[in-house]
Amino acid sequence: MTDRLLELFERANGEFVSGEEISGKLQVSRTAIWKQIERLRTQGYEFEAVPRKGYKLLSKPDKLDVADVLSRLQTKVLGRELKYYEQVESTQNIAREWVDAGAPEGTLVVAEMQTAGRGRMGRSWHSPKGKGLWMSLILRPSIPINFTPQLTLLVAVAVCRAIRGNLHLPVGIKWPNDLLIDRKKVCGILLESSAEDERLQHVIVGMGISANLEPRDYSPELAAKATSLAIASGRAIDRTELLCRVMLELEQLYDMYQERGFAPIKSLWEALSVTLDRPVAVDTPKGRTEGTAVSIEDSGALVVRLEDGKLVKMYSGDVEMR
Amino acid sequence: MTDRLLELFERANGEFVSGEEISGKLQVSRTAIWKQIERLRTQGYEFEAVPRKGYKLLSKPDKLDVADVLSRLQTKVLGRELKYYEQVESTQNIAREWVDAGAPEGTLVVAEMQTAGRGRMGRSWHSPKGKGLWMSLILRPSIPINFTPQLTLLVAVAVCRAIRGNLHLPVGIKWPNDLLIDRKKVCGILLESSAEDERLQHVIVGMGISANLEPRDYSPELAAKATSLAIASGRAIDRTELLCRVMLELEQLYDMYQERGFAPIKSLWEALSVTLDRPVAVDTPKGRTEGTAVSIEDSGALVVRLEDGKLVKMYSGDVEMR
Repeated sequence: MTDRLLELFERANGEFVSGEEISGKLQVSRTAIWKQIERLRTQGYEFEAVPRKGYKLLSKPDKLDVADVLSRLQTKVLGRELKYYEQVESTQNIAREWVDAGAPEGTLVVAEMQTAGRGRMGRSWHSPKGKGLWMSLILRPSIPINFTPQLTLLVAVAVCRAIRGNLHLPVGIKWPNDLLIDRKKVCGILLESSAEDERLQHVIVGMGISANLEPRDYSPELAAKATSLAIASGRAIDRTELLCRVMLELEQLYDMYQERGFAPIKSLWEALSVTLDRPVAVDTPKGRTEGTAVSIEDSGALVVRLEDGKLVKMYSGDVEMR
Repeated sequence: MTDRLLELFERANGEFVSGEEISGKLQVSRTAIWKQIERLRTQGYEFEAVPRKGYKLLSKPDKLDVADVLSRLQTKVLGRELKYYEQVESTQNIAREWVDAGAPEGTLVVAEMQTAGRGRMGRSWHSPKGKGLWMSLILRPSIPINFTPQLTLLVAVAVCRAIRGNLHLPVGIKWPNDLLIDRKKVCGILLESSAEDERLQHVIVGMGISANLEPRDYSPELAAKATSLAIASGRAIDRTELLCRVMLELEQLYDMYQERGFAPIKSLWEALSVTLDRPVAVDTPKGRTEGTAVSIEDSGALVVRLEDGKLVKMYSGDVEMR
C-alpha cells in the first residue's frame, strides 16, 4: 500500500489529496491511511494534514547517495572507504566492528539515522532520519597516547572550519570539542581511542552534525540548548557538500598535525574558541571549578584562573559558560 | 585410559613403571602408551623415559586453586572478582569481553595456559601450561588519558616489588615496563586502554610472569633473552603466593597514586630502573635514537641525552641496552 500511496502524492505534485480520494483509489479505510501517513513520517516523509482538504506531501526524506559522495570527495584517504547504513544503533559501535575487522585509516561510517546515538559522558545523541550527518571516522595515527587530547581539539577545529567555510555561520568551539551557534549546540564530537601501553592504536572519531533538523524535531528541553545549521542559516543544508568539506578540512589538518605538530592547530583552536577569556564553571568527577578560562596547553588541558588568581589545569570535564 | 595410567604412576610412588607392566595391566599397546604419555606431557605432566626401565612420573602440572587464591588474597578490591580458565587464546581478549559485559574494577582473569598470548607491539608471549602467571586485570581509573603512561610505570613497579619482596631476586625495570633479571626478561606487561575524549574509560593490565618455566621450556632463541623466576632462584615458585603479592602491591600503589599522584611512583620506578644512566638505543616507528637514558618525566617519557648533549624525549619505543 505504501508505494501506491506515495505514487498518489507524486502525481498530486505538491497539492492536497483528500482522504476520500485516497480511500477510494486504494480501497482502504481512513484509519488505515492515517496509520500509513504516520509510518511514513517516522521514515522522514513530511506531510501537512488539514481537515476536509486531506494530506499534502511536503518533503521526502533526504538520502545520501554513496556514489555522489565519493565523486565529490576531494580527499586522498579520509572517507574514501565509505560504509553507508540506513539505520544503526550507533555509528561508533559499527565503526568499532570495522576496526576489529581491520578497516584501514580513513574508513567512514555514515548512517541516516541512529536509534541509540551516543554523546559525551554516556549521554544520548538525537539523530533523526535524514536530518543530520551522523558519522564515525576511523583513524590510526602513530602518535603517543599523551597526545590524544590534541586530536580531540583538532577535530573540533576541522568541523568548525568546514561549517564556516561551507555556510558562513558563526560557529565557535566550547572546550574541548562542542560546536555552538549562539550558545546552542549544533555539533557533538566524541573520540573513542584505544591504546597499547604508551602507543595509540586507533581512534574512532564520532561526529554528530545537526544539519537539517527543524524546530519541531526538538523536544522543548533540547530546543533550549540545541540548534541546527538549517535553523541558524534559514535554509536547507546540502549534507553531501558538508560531509565532503568536513573530510577535506580534517584531512588537511590531520596531515599538517602529523608534519608540524600541535602548534598550528592550537592557534586555530584558540581563534575559534568561545571558551577562552570567559567566566566558566567546569564540572569534573571531583567537583566544580569556577573561574576564567585563560588558555589551553599542549596537553589539551584548559587553564582556568580562580578568583584568587591561582591557575588550575582542567584535563577533562564539562564546561558551563556563565 | 588416562585415569588408570595416572593411577599406576601414583601407586609407583615416583619409581619407574615398565612399558611391559603398563601394557599388561591396561591391555593396550606400547604405541598407545607412548601416545598417552605425550598427551599428558602437553598437559603439564613431566615424565622421564629410559629404555628398558620404562617411564617415571617426575611432576604433575601445577594448578591454581581459586578458593585457595581468594583465601590468601589480602586486597580489598583487586583480584577479588577472579575469572579462572584452564586455557585461553589470550587473557587480554577474555578480559575485554568481561569489560564489555560490565565487569567491575579489580576483576582478574587468570589462565593456566595461553595459546596466543600477546606481548608489546604485536609480539607473541610464550605461556606454557601451569608454568607462569598469565593474567589480565581490569582497572577503571578516573584519570585523564594523558596520565595513562604513568599507570604503565606503576604496574612495572608493583610487579617488580612483589617479586623482590616474595623471592628476593634482583629484578629491574627496563623502560617502560619490562622486568629483567641479569638482562633477561622475566615478566612482560601490556596495558590496553580505552578512552572517551580526554577521559580514560578502562585499562586492561596484562601481566605475563614467567614463574616456573625450566630451561627446556624455552627455544634456543628465547633462552638467549628470557628467563624465569625458578631458573633465577633455583627453586619452584608458589604461584598463588606470588599472585597474591602482586595484587597487594598493585592495590597499595594504585591507591597511593590516586591519592598522592605520580611523584612517589616516579621515585620508586627510578630506584628500580636498569635503564637510567645507561647507554641505550630506542627504536621507534620513526627510527633509532642512541644516547644515554637520563630521566623519566611526568608524561612517562624517557629523556635521552644524545652524543652532542641534546636532550630528546621518547614517548614510546623499544629500548635496547648497550
